This record gives sequence, structure tokens and C-alpha cells, in this order.
Amino acid sequence: MITVIGSLAGLLTTACWLPQVLRCLQRRSARDFSWVYLVALGLGVLAWVLYGIAREDPVIITTNAITLVLISVLVSVKLRTELGKPLVSASE
Amino acid sequence: MITVIGSLAGLLTTACWLPQVLRCLQRRSARDFSWVYLVALGLGVLAWVLYGIAREDPVIITTNAITLVLISVLVSVKLRTELGKPLVSASE
Repeated sequence: MITVIGSLAGLLTTACWLPQVLRCLQRRSARDFSWVYLVALGLGVLAWVLYGIAREDPVIITTNAITLVLISVLVSVKLRTELGKPLVSASE
Repeated sequence: MITVIGSLAGLLTTACWLPQVLRCLQRRSARDFSWVYLVALGLGVLAWVLYGIAREDPVIITTNAITLVLISVLVSVKLRTELGKPLVSASE
């Protein structure tokens, strides 16, 4: 039962990231997110992964690993757009 | 050491909420957040609090309880502004 609660928590809080990441990919811009925000959040979520490993808690590890992947999508879009390399979508 | 990692994780991921909450209070508007987002996130964070209680993990409980307070500030601003009651700031 505890794992179900944790998985539900993880699912909801991670799913909340999807609209923002999809919008960022559609717009090909991550200007809504400052570097300070992305770096602080990335380090925080990475620390949660380490905490989950230290606690041997797969719920915390999985949730935050997925969130870390979503944040790295935002970082890569931001890097590419700010380094002037246009993001080429599959349709072009 | 594990608690330090968890506390750092909690501090960083919770602190990332502050700029958005402060901007919402300054603008007296929470239009950046949809109800679906706030409800899903609120339920998710609440589930993390329950998970922390079930795991008897003060780091998870504290972090998510603070985040829940910040989300409830967003909800209250959104409720008041959408119900037409202007938010009266201390200076007025």
C-alpha cells in the first residue's frame, strides 16, 4: 500500500512536468525557465535520486530519475536555442 | 549524511517554487497555473506527505509539507482572483 501511495505521488508530480516540456518542445524555446532555476532544480532532483539510492527506495529513485530526464530536455532545448543552433523538428 | 542529502534535495526543489509564488503574489494573479495543474500537483505533493508519514521519513514529510503550503498560496490567489475578490495588499 505504501508503494502505491508513493507511486501515485511520483506519477502526479512528474506528470505535472509534461505540459511544460511539451510546450517547450513545440515552441522550441525554454525561455520560460532561467538557468538559475534549471540548475537549482536539476541539482535538487539529482540529490533526491541519490537520497532514494541511499534509502534504497525505488519509488523515490524512479520518480526523480524521470523528472531528471524531463529537466535535461529543457536544458538541452535552452542550450541549443541560446547557442543559436535552431532545433530542427522531424517535419523539416 | 543521508539526511543531509535529503534535506539539500528538499531545500533546492522547494526553493525553486518561491520565485513563482512571489511573482503570483506581486501580480495578484495565478493565471500561469491551470486548475488541472494545481489540483494534480497538490494531490501529488499531498501523497508524498502521506508517503513520508508511512515511511516515517521526516525529510520527505517536511519538504512536501512546505511545498503544499506554497501550492495552497497559489490556489488561494487563484480562487480569490477568479471569484472576483481583489487581493488587498498591506499597502492599500
